[in-house]
Amino acid sequence: MLDVFGPLEIFGARPEAFSITLIGPDAGAVASNQGPAAVCNYAYAEAPECDIVLVPGGMGTRRLVADETFLRWLAAWADRAEFVTSVCTGAALLAAAGLLDDRRATSNKQAFRWVVTTSDRVKWVPQARWVVDGRCWTSSGVAAGIDMALGLVAHLSGEEDARGVATHVEYEWHSDSSWDPFASVYGLEDIESSPSA
Amino acid sequence: MLDVFGPLEIFGARPEAFSITLIGPDAGAVASNQGPAAVCNYAYAEAPECDIVLVPGGMGTRRLVADETFLRWLAAWADRAEFVTSVCTGAALLAAAGLLDDRRATSNKQAFRWVVTTSDRVKWVPQARWVVDGRCWTSSGVAAGIDMALGLVAHLSGEEDARGVATHVEYEWHSDSSWDPFASVYGLEDIESSPSA
Repeated sequence: MLDVFGPLEIFGARPEAFSITLIGPDAGAVASNQGPAAVCNYAYAEAPECDIVLVPGGMGTRRLVADETFLRWLAAWADRAEFVTSVCTGAALLAAAGLLDDRRATSNKQAFRWVVTTSDRVKWVPQARWVVDGRCWTSSGVAAGIDMALGLVAHLSGEEDARGVATHVEYEWHSDSSWDPFASVYGLEDIESSPSA
Repeated sequence: MLDVFGPLEIFGARPEAFSITLIGPDAGAVASNQGPAAVCNYAYAEAPECDIVLVPGGMGTRRLVADETFLRWLAAWADRAEFVTSVCTGAALLAAAGLLDDRRATSNKQAFRWVVTTSDRVKWVPQARWVVDGRCWTSSGVAAGIDMALGLVAHLSGEEDARGVATHVEYEWHSDSSWDPFASVYGLEDIESSPSA
């Protein structure tokens, strides 16, 4: 839930700059793993082009990472976006779809050892709040998506604007994308970054 | 959106302890002020008793604070709960419903001067991440609800469990409920706490 609605709260605070569209397997209610459901505006097949694609994580990624039909759709749809972003294990889906090939990227720390198995063409970065490589913005687990979204606001309209949004929602922004106290909790300092990461 | 889904992410991380029910004016989709909609399980009239009531804020509170039918329902429904909680300007609805009478409480800092006008029977606390007074737990704006929810998990199952949830969702918990850098942003250090707060 927070993978989706954390970043959307940030973008939603600037309605003059961002309009939000939710995409799912079908239009209508899609339940989270924890129960509560959100309403998708469009099915995958009817998804309009979006400037920013954000792929959340969650237990559903374990199934979707092996769903070739979904991955082909994601690769084609996201390829037209200006920014391709993920929160948590959403990076596994971008990776499996080939959207992170030759890119530096990060993901959820508890699930990191699984995520790296989804593609050996990605330069996985074990310790980072979020990673930017070209148009690809990938964040660590769940709450890290809020920090990445504020980073994207800063990229698009300046750090002062991002700080204004953070204050508005009373969030202490971790504006340093290298801040990550969670990698060591899961022993990821023992995992080497990909050689060229 | 984050008022609701921040705390629900925290409670949802412990499905063995918490089950989540969304209540709205009608069962079905309810849109946020920013656009995206969530699915309510029950209409107000059919709401089952809940152990923990959480009232989110948002622009909708400006209308509901004057809706006597809603406030009478909220007062009666929440009165049967073990914990009555709010995020952001949700405290204005608890206050207008009389649920915070003679209690210490806090709310969104940008809207604080409006919130205090909704009841002079509440001991409003201008500087706090969240405030606990008996069964009433009230948090500051938006993201503060995550910290309060973790505080409630700590209260119910211990601080170690709350820290485990925070790490799981990669959130830096502000576990000190008096931490509040946002009160001074809006000049609330010039507002006196209620005499007995």
